Amino acid sequence: MDAEQLRECGHRMVDFVADYYKSIETFPVLSQVQPGYLKKLLPDTAPSKPDTLEALFDDIREKIVPGVTHWQSPNYFAYYPSNSSTAGFLGEMLSAAFNIVGFSWITSPAATELEIIVLDWFAKMLKLPSQFLSTALGGGIIQGTASEAVLVALLAARDRTLRKHGKTSLKKLVVYASDQTHSSLQKACQIAGIFQENVRLVKADCNKNYAVTPEAVSEAIATGLLSGLIPFFICATVGTTSSSAVDPLPELGQIAKAHDMWFHIDAAYAGSACICAEYRHHLNGVEEADSFNMNAHKWFLTNFDCSLLWVKDRSYLIQSLSTNPEFLKNKASQENSVVDFKDWQIPLGRRFRSLKLWMVLRLYGVENLQSYIRKHIELAKYFEQLVIADSRFEVVTPRTFSLVCFRLLPLASDQDDGRNLNYDLMDAANSSGKIFLSHTVLSGKFILRFAVGAPLTEEQHVFAAWKLLQDLASKQLESS
Amino acid sequence: MDAEQLRECGHRMVDFVADYYKSIETFPVLSQVQPGYLKKLLPDTAPSKPDTLEALFDDIREKIVPGVTHWQSPNYFAYYPSNSSTAGFLGEMLSAAFNIVGFSWITSPAATELEIIVLDWFAKMLKLPSQFLSTALGGGIIQGTASEAVLVALLAARDRTLRKHGKTSLKKLVVYASDQTHSSLQKACQIAGIFQENVRLVKADCNKNYAVTPEAVSEAIATGLLSGLIPFFICATVGTTSSSAVDPLPELGQIAKAHDMWFHIDAAYAGSACICAEYRHHLNGVEEADSFNMNAHKWFLTNFDCSLLWVKDRSYLIQSLSTNPEFLKNKASQENSVVDFKDWQIPLGRRFRSLKLWMVLRLYGVENLQSYIRKHIELAKYFEQLVIADSRFEVVTPRTFSLVCFRLLPLASDQDDGRNLNYDLMDAANSSGKIFLSHTVLSGKFILRFAVGAPLTEEQHVFAAWKLLQDLASKQLESS
Repeated sequence: MDAEQLRECGHRMVDFVADYYKSIETFPVLSQVQPGYLKKLLPDTAPSKPDTLEALFDDIREKIVPGVTHWQSPNYFAYYPSNSSTAGFLGEMLSAAFNIVGFSWITSPAATELEIIVLDWFAKMLKLPSQFLSTALGGGIIQGTASEAVLVALLAARDRTLRKHGKTSLKKLVVYASDQTHSSLQKACQIAGIFQENVRLVKADCNKNYAVTPEAVSEAIATGLLSGLIPFFICATVGTTSSSAVDPLPELGQIAKAHDMWFHIDAAYAGSACICAEYRHHLNGVEEADSFNMNAHKWFLTNFDCSLLWVKDRSYLIQSLSTNPEFLKNKASQENSVVDFKDWQIPLGRRFRSLKLWMVLRLYGVENLQSYIRKHIELAKYFEQLVIADSRFEVVTPRTFSLVCFRLLPLASDQDDGRNLNYDLMDAANSSGKIFLSHTVLSGKFILRFAVGAPLTEEQHVFAAWKLLQDLASKQLESS
Repeated sequence: MDAEQLRECGHRMVDFVADYYKSIETFPVLSQVQPGYLKKLLPDTAPSKPDTLEALFDDIREKIVPGVTHWQSPNYFAYYPSNSSTAGFLGEMLSAAFNIVGFSWITSPAATELEIIVLDWFAKMLKLPSQFLSTALGGGIIQGTASEAVLVALLAARDRTLRKHGKTSLKKLVVYASDQTHSSLQKACQIAGIFQENVRLVKADCNKNYAVTPEAVSEAIATGLLSGLIPFFICATVGTTSSSAVDPLPELGQIAKAHDMWFHIDAAYAGSACICAEYRHHLNGVEEADSFNMNAHKWFLTNFDCSLLWVKDRSYLIQSLSTNPEFLKNKASQENSVVDFKDWQIPLGRRFRSLKLWMVLRLYGVENLQSYIRKHIELAKYFEQLVIADSRFEVVTPRTFSLVCFRLLPLASDQDDGRNLNYDLMDAANSSGKIFLSHTVLSGKFILRFAVGAPLTEEQHVFAAWKLLQDLASKQLESS
């Protein structure tokens, strides 16, 4: 580690990265390599002697890049996006340079304090109730992912309930959510020891764009109560993974309140849109929430990972996740004059992630970030119109944000309601390397997901993607 | 996001970072700010309009850097180190540039495959038994931290045992470890729902440098069995946090085997040393382990976070941590022809962390990495000799790796066995800004920890640190 060596190599890497972005459209969006490809290209053991940076760059170009799926490509429309940006990238660089491990305030006060400040900024941008601010009893923290956010919320809720009902009542604790809830809730329950049969995923309503209805949740809770179970956690989603459905927050919040349950809101994807006034109404009901989560690393130009979690009462997190070993004791912590984020999360160590979010907010400003979101939503609207205009296709659920769920209509002769037809269309599109889109299944229908949200995506890319899908569909329909 | 803007700004950030490293010795190692300092310097809300990069750099210099504790300073001797290096930094840059989310193989095959390959390389460097290789039933994975590594091991063990004894037997499951085990084990147990009274931390033996004895563990297990409890997990440590003690792996492994328990080894810090032939014997007994963990992000020049976990049978992890939602299904995963690391870890999303470890191994080579470790151990030996030569001090436990545990001997008049004396010495040293060291308590004694391991540390820094400690001690002793 020598500062001048770092400077020289760092400049070369910046050029490599800039060149990568310049040429990003020349690579297949979805990597086309076969399983095990890299083992054939690399040696079996680590090198004894150092290699040159030039040799490394050659290997990156020839062996690594072909195995990369290009999430930053403007032709990436799969899953939900994972935004990189100049500001986010600079933030990652600076964070890697300081390379602090910010478990306690004292290990780098700026890391903890900037995180508190930026999360308060963001809470205000989303117009979260003031209880979620650090100045009240709540506060925000950057988690790695929405999986970790829902897990820590679940643990706080579990332990709050067990303190009340006794720790042997774990077997009676029941979680309620829509069957459209992200699988991370199921996983959090596995980790927390919630019995599998007590994770009640209530069927969402296909007539409400796959949002869950309050009636169905109430009914499920009532049934559970009759069996002596203890309802303790409701997870609602703003922007489900399959179809960006929005669960009815105010009603679910009321139900949670009536039963003394923890109310968690997962707005991992769609939370970003709610910084725009015209989409903020989707968060109405957040007043009732105990915890609220959105991923700045999805659609908010902040490099992965950066998942924002706010809680209304931080003491529940701290009660569940604190440890206080001698070797970490220090004056500031002992005096309770500071926040130690180790007690709000699963791991002890943590990176200086607030830097990148702060830099995104500073270098772009809220107005530009709103425009950025609106532009993607406009592009999704445009795609939706293109689909509607082609009678061979259908839009399956109404578009709410920047995701369009659509499919090629099944032929009269179809035995599987268009499953193979659409699977083959997706496979052909993804195998072409020209675009990458993904799928889901709703009410048994195999559906294509076209999620706009990569930073470089422009109208021309959406149009070209649609043309490609049309052409591939024509070929398929001809041959079938 | 524009490639040329990224290039220009990236170059400026590289220069900023290189200049930071060049001037790193001019900053107080431990940040000297007061709690709440940053709130006074930043606005209450996010800016509406974009700011310039120049303004941001000014703020970083004036407002952020004073709140940073400089883990990369050559005068950092606290906790255990968090190494940054040119190779590690370049790896972080490239990972942030691709910004993929590698939950499944298909989301970037190179990310999963490079991780498998590099973890196999590392297993061979450590001479782990072949069962831990990906080519057998085991394999390695990069976790964020040792906390997450021990948690996933504990969950795999918990569920394996519950499948055998029934899921209502959670209340009977007991974890055994030394009372010198890192607090992350305690936290993992809290998360996994292990009853607090069933986390049996057996008193370590002060005559064995605070390693636990097999006899004490056996006795604790026997007592538990008499009460109808189910022993299911032993955690051993190679290089404890307080004094870098090494637990007796072969004997603990035998005990675990005899009781059908999961045997986890935490070598978070000292694992790095075991790539050197003369330290490898500390891992003897790893043949008996079900899981083994070391942190490349501590003392192995790989930027945080990069915690390496190997398991002997990956199916246990996968059984505990799998989810398989429709929206993530894909041909490669369905055919079971690939590894999907989402099923080996807590979160769904994951960064392309293998890049930085690969680059560290490639750009430095194993021989240089061994020399790097040896040099730090030599510097720690040197410090130990300096302490021994000053009769006012004592070395409290024998040094094994690069940590020296020492203290200023209590005065005859001392009421607290030197606690205040040593606390004040540490506080004076840390407040000077010239060095940063930390403390622990062993057998009631307040002890100073001097951990060598920052990449820039040379003999001159160790010598200057010692001189400072001597001078401060003299002043203290004069005034008392």
